[in-house]
Amino acid sequence: MKRSIATVSLSGTLPEKLDAIAAAGFDGVEIFENDLLYYDGSPREVRQMCADLGLAISLFQPFRDFEGCRRDRLARNLDRAERKFDLMQELGTDLVLVCSNTASDSVGDWQVLRDDLSLLAERAGARDLRIGYEALAWGRHVNTWQQVWDLVRQIDHPNLGVLLDSFHTLSLKGDPGAIAQIPGDKIFFVQMADAPLLAMDVLEWSRHFRCFPGQGEFDLPGFLAPIIQSGYTGPLSLEVFNDGFRAAPTRANAADGFRSLLYLEEKTRERLARQAEPEVSLEPLFAPAAASAYDGIEFLEFAVDESRGAQLGHWLERLGFRKAGQHRSKNVSLLRQGDINLILNAEPYSFAHNFFEAHGPSLCATAIRVEDSTRALARAVAYKGQPYRGLVGPNELELAAVRAPDGSLIYLVDTDASGKPLYESDFNLAPVDASPGGLKRIDHMAMALPAESLDSWVLFYKSLLDFEADDEVVLPDPYGLVKSRALRSRCSSIRLPLNISENRNTAISHALSSYRGSGVHHIAFECDDLFAEVSRAKEAGVPLLDIPLNYYDDLAARFDFDDEFLSELAYFNVLYDRDGQGGELFHVYTEPFEGRFFFELLQRKNGYAGYGAANVAVRLAAMAKSRSGAVRQAKL
Amino acid sequence: MKRSIATVSLSGTLPEKLDAIAAAGFDGVEIFENDLLYYDGSPREVRQMCADLGLAISLFQPFRDFEGCRRDRLARNLDRAERKFDLMQELGTDLVLVCSNTASDSVGDWQVLRDDLSLLAERAGARDLRIGYEALAWGRHVNTWQQVWDLVRQIDHPNLGVLLDSFHTLSLKGDPGAIAQIPGDKIFFVQMADAPLLAMDVLEWSRHFRCFPGQGEFDLPGFLAPIIQSGYTGPLSLEVFNDGFRAAPTRANAADGFRSLLYLEEKTRERLARQAEPEVSLEPLFAPAAASAYDGIEFLEFAVDESRGAQLGHWLERLGFRKAGQHRSKNVSLLRQGDINLILNAEPYSFAHNFFEAHGPSLCATAIRVEDSTRALARAVAYKGQPYRGLVGPNELELAAVRAPDGSLIYLVDTDASGKPLYESDFNLAPVDASPGGLKRIDHMAMALPAESLDSWVLFYKSLLDFEADDEVVLPDPYGLVKSRALRSRCSSIRLPLNISENRNTAISHALSSYRGSGVHHIAFECDDLFAEVSRAKEAGVPLLDIPLNYYDDLAARFDFDDEFLSELAYFNVLYDRDGQGGELFHVYTEPFEGRFFFELLQRKNGYAGYGAANVAVRLAAMAKSRSGAVRQAKL
Repeated sequence: MKRSIATVSLSGTLPEKLDAIAAAGFDGVEIFENDLLYYDGSPREVRQMCADLGLAISLFQPFRDFEGCRRDRLARNLDRAERKFDLMQELGTDLVLVCSNTASDSVGDWQVLRDDLSLLAERAGARDLRIGYEALAWGRHVNTWQQVWDLVRQIDHPNLGVLLDSFHTLSLKGDPGAIAQIPGDKIFFVQMADAPLLAMDVLEWSRHFRCFPGQGEFDLPGFLAPIIQSGYTGPLSLEVFNDGFRAAPTRANAADGFRSLLYLEEKTRERLARQAEPEVSLEPLFAPAAASAYDGIEFLEFAVDESRGAQLGHWLERLGFRKAGQHRSKNVSLLRQGDINLILNAEPYSFAHNFFEAHGPSLCATAIRVEDSTRALARAVAYKGQPYRGLVGPNELELAAVRAPDGSLIYLVDTDASGKPLYESDFNLAPVDASPGGLKRIDHMAMALPAESLDSWVLFYKSLLDFEADDEVVLPDPYGLVKSRALRSRCSSIRLPLNISENRNTAISHALSSYRGSGVHHIAFECDDLFAEVSRAKEAGVPLLDIPLNYYDDLAARFDFDDEFLSELAYFNVLYDRDGQGGELFHVYTEPFEGRFFFELLQRKNGYAGYGAANVAVRLAAMAKSRSGAVRQAKL
Repeated sequence: MKRSIATVSLSGTLPEKLDAIAAAGFDGVEIFENDLLYYDGSPREVRQMCADLGLAISLFQPFRDFEGCRRDRLARNLDRAERKFDLMQELGTDLVLVCSNTASDSVGDWQVLRDDLSLLAERAGARDLRIGYEALAWGRHVNTWQQVWDLVRQIDHPNLGVLLDSFHTLSLKGDPGAIAQIPGDKIFFVQMADAPLLAMDVLEWSRHFRCFPGQGEFDLPGFLAPIIQSGYTGPLSLEVFNDGFRAAPTRANAADGFRSLLYLEEKTRERLARQAEPEVSLEPLFAPAAASAYDGIEFLEFAVDESRGAQLGHWLERLGFRKAGQHRSKNVSLLRQGDINLILNAEPYSFAHNFFEAHGPSLCATAIRVEDSTRALARAVAYKGQPYRGLVGPNELELAAVRAPDGSLIYLVDTDASGKPLYESDFNLAPVDASPGGLKRIDHMAMALPAESLDSWVLFYKSLLDFEADDEVVLPDPYGLVKSRALRSRCSSIRLPLNISENRNTAISHALSSYRGSGVHHIAFECDDLFAEVSRAKEAGVPLLDIPLNYYDDLAARFDFDDEFLSELAYFNVLYDRDGQGGELFHVYTEPFEGRFFFELLQRKNGYAGYGAANVAVRLAAMAKSRSGAVRQAKL
C-alpha cells in the first residue's frame, strides 16, 4: 500500500518533518494546515520540497465547520474554501479533508447538510479537486462513518468521498465491519491512529493521547480489514496527535511510524487470511517472514573489564553460579547454573568493550532461542531492524543478531543449536559444570528506559519479534511514580518488563543515570525452593535487600500465616504475593551490584503469572533507603 | 484551626516527610499506611519522631473494604481490624479512616452495613479508638456524605463518626450545603483537596490530579463553610494524591500545603462573613490583613552589568524610551515612556548584582502599586512570604518588598507615592522626560517556569497578593507543548501569564536555560496606535520577529480584510486576533534581547481581554526559526 503520515504527527519545523518522513520510507504526506501557515516558504516551495524528497502530498487538512454552518455565513465559508482551494493547487494536491461541523450553532437538518456538501463538491469539482468528508467523534450532528457514507451516497458526486479515521470510530466503540460494503473508490482516504483506552473526554483523548498502531489498545486490524475488503487502494496514513510525539526526535519517531504501519498491515493480513475471503487480494499488505516460536533465553552477555568482570563473577558465584568455560582466544568467560548461561566479556576491541566504554558494567547482549534464526533475522530486517555481524575469530560460531533500540544486541540462536554444542566451538568447557545452586532459569529481565522511549521499545518488540505487551502498571517510588509495561513472547518463555519514570530521583532514574542510558537493571532467576536458595545465598554473603518488619506485620493482617512462617519470611527478607486464583509468588532481591543491576530470586506456585507488582512499592522504598545509606557511606 | 496533612501528599521517606510537615507549621499528620509499612522503624519510633517534632498523629488511614464484605470474610476482616488497632495504639492515634467498600462482591443491604459498622465501632470503642467513616466517590454502595451521615446517625455509636473529604463530594458534583446540619461533634475528621475540573474516570482523577486548595477549580470555601457552621472543631487536613507532588521537593511542597490551608480559611471566612451568620464563630479561621487594591506596575528593574546595561538601554531607546534619570549615588538609571518606568541596575554589591551573577541580564524586581503598602506587606508576611530589606543609602526611599518564589523582588509601592515623587529622592531626574514614543503602559509580563513549579506560583500570587488565575491554555511550539496560565490582579491592571513546558527544546525551555531558572522573558507594552509605534520602531532598527506570509493568507481566508490592509499587517509583521464579542488585538513581537527577553507592542480594541492565544503557535514557530538562524550564525 502507499504509506503516508500527517505532518502534525511529528515534532519540528516543516522541512525537518518532511525530511524525516522521506527518510523513514513513506510515499506521501498529509500537510496539516498549521505546519504550512507557520512556515516561511510559499506553498509552491513546499510542493517542490516534497517533489525533491519523492513525497506525494496526499492530503491537505483540515477544513473545519463548513456543512450546516449558520446560513448567514455560508457565502463567507465558500469564499474561505476557494482560498484554500487556491492553496491546494499551489501545493499540488487534489484532496482536502473536510471534518464534520462541531459548532454549537450549526444546523443538523439532513437536507441542509446535503446541499452544503453538494455545493462544496461542485466547487471542488470545477477545479478537479476532491473532498474527503470525515466524521469527528465530537461532531455536532455527524459523528459516525455511517452518517458520512449516507451523505456521500445520497449526494453521489464524483468529487465527494468518505474519509475514514480509526480513532473517530473506535473511540466511540463504533463498528467498522460494514465499511466492507462501501465501494472502495468512494473511500477517498484512510487515517490510522491507535490509542490507550482511557475513560475521558473524547476530544482531549484524541488531541493528546493518540499513538502509532500497535502502541495502543484499539483493534486496528479489525478496522483496516473491512477497508481492504471494500477494495480501497488509496494511501494508509498516520494522523497522530500526541503530546510526547510533539517533542520526540523527528527522524526516530517517523521511523517508528513507518514500522507501525508495516505491523498493522501484517496483523491485518493475518486477520483477513483467517477470515479466508479468497476474493480479497492481500497483495498490497506487508508480509514479512512469520515470527518464530521462542524457547526462553539462551544466554546473557555482560560487558565488563578485567576487574569488574572478576567482581561480578564473584557476586554470581555467591549466587551459586560456577565457571563453566573460558573462551578459546578471548577474555570471555562462561558461568552456569541450571539452564542459565551468563557470559562475562572483558575482551578489548570488541562490541562488548565499546558497550562497556559507553555504559560501564552492563548487559550488552541477550541471546534468545528461536525456532529458525535465519527466518527470525529476515523478519527483523524486513521490519527495518539493524542486523549485526561482529568480529568472528577462528573456530567461533557466528550468531544472527539484531540491534535493540539502545544499541545492545539480541542474538537469535536456533533452539536445536543451543546448550552444550553452542559453547563447545568457542569455549574450553570445564569437564563438569554442575553448580551447587538451585536456580533453574531466567524468569525475566527488567529494563529502565527514558520515559519518552517506551512506546518505541514496545513497537520494536511487537513488530520484529512478535512479542505481546501487557497493560501498563503504575507503581509508587518514594520519589515519584514508576510506570511498567511487560513485554512477553507469546509462549511467555521470555519476559521483559520495561520501566520508566518521569521523575528525577526514583530508582529507575538512578538506573538510567548509572547506565548512562537505557539498560537491563534487574534480572530475576527462578527456582523450585526459594528458602533453600536464599538461605544458601545469605550464607555465601550475598547482600539481600532489607525489607522493613512493618511489611510483615501487614502480611499478618492480610493473610492467615502462622508466626513462625512469618518470622522465616522476615528473616530472609522474602516478599509474598497471592493472585486471585491462588497463585503464589515468593521472591527476594539482592542489593545492586555497583549501583546498577540487582538480582531477584523467585519461586512461582500454582501458576502465578505476574511480577509481584503488589510488592514493588516496598522494594522501591527499600532501594531508596539503601541508596541513601550508600550515599552516607560514600560521604564518610 | 488545627492544620494537618496526610503523608501521602508529599515525596520522600517517612522521616523526610514528617520533618517537612513540622517545618511548614502543621499541627498534625495523617499517617498513610504504606508510608509506615515501607519504613524500617517501628510504629513506636514513628510516634516518638512525631512527638519530638511537635506533631500530633491525627489519623491513621486507610482501612478498606470492610463494611458489607462477603459474609465468609467478616471474621477475617475483624481480625485484620484488630491488627490495625494494635498498630494505632503503638502509633498513639485514636482515629482510623474507614473508607466505603469498593469490592464488586460487597453487600449493599443497609442493615448489613449498619451491623458491620456497629460491630467495628464496638471493637474500636473497647480500646478507646474511633472510626471515621468516609464515602469514596467510587464506593460500591456508599459514595456520598449523606449516606455516611445516615448510617452514622442510625447507628448512633459514640466511637463512629463522619469523615468528610472535599474531593469525594465535589468530584460527583455533590452538594455540601446540608453538612451544616450535622452536629459538629459527629464529624470526626475533614480532608481537603482541590482538583482541576477534568472529564475523566473519577478514580484516576482522584489518584493523580488532586492538588492543594486554591490550585484547582473546586469551590472549597463552599465545602468548608457548612463544616464550620456545623460546629466542627477538629483538624483541617490535606490529602492530596498528585503525580507531581510525589516527586516535588518535600519541604517546599509542605510549605505550599500549609499556605493553601491558610488561603482556604481566609476565603471561607469571607464567604461566611458575607452570609452574615452571627452565631458562627469565625475565630478559628485564618485572618490576614485584607488584600490591597492595585493600580498597575510602577516600575520594572533589570539586573545588568555596565555593558549589558548600555546594550539594553540602547534597545529600549530604539523602542522609544528615554533616559529620565540617573541614581544619585549608584550605577542605576531610569528610562521612561508614557506611564512606563524601567530601571537598569548595574550597581556592584547590590541585590541586582547578585541576581545578575546568578541569571545574567534579567528582570530582578517588579514594583506594583498598592493602596496600602504596610498592609500589603503584613498580608504577605502572614502568608509566610519572605519580606526583603536591601541596603539603603542616604536620601534613598525604602520600599516594602517581598521575595517571589524565584528570589526576585516584588516591591509594594503606595499608589499615592508613585510617579515623580518616588524617583526624586533617589534619582537626579532629567528636566524633561517626554519620550517621542507612544507606548503607554505595561500590559503584561510573561514568565517561564519549570513545569513542576507552576502550582506553587499560582498559590503564591493567589494568597499573598489575592490575584486570580485564568484557566490553563495549551499551545503548540514546534518542539513540544507549552502550557500557559495567566495571573491577574482582580482589577486586571497587573497581568502575569505563567508559561511552562515539559519538553526540552521549546521556547520556554530555552528561556529557562538562558535565565538559569524561572524568569520574566516577555514584556508587553500597550499603545493607542500600533502602526505608528511599530513603524517608528522599525525605522529605529528594532529587530521585529518575522511572521510567515502564509499566516496572512490565512487571515485573508478567515476575515474580510482588504488586500491593502493585509499587506500593511504583513509588512509590519503585525498579528491579529478577534474575540467573540468583536474585541480586537493587534500585536507585534521583537526578536529577543540576548536570547532571553523579547518585547511585545500591542493595541487592544473594543475591550479585547486576552493575550492573543490564537497567535502563540505562529509566534513560537517564528521564534524557533529565529533561534535556529541564530545558531547557524553563531556556527559560522
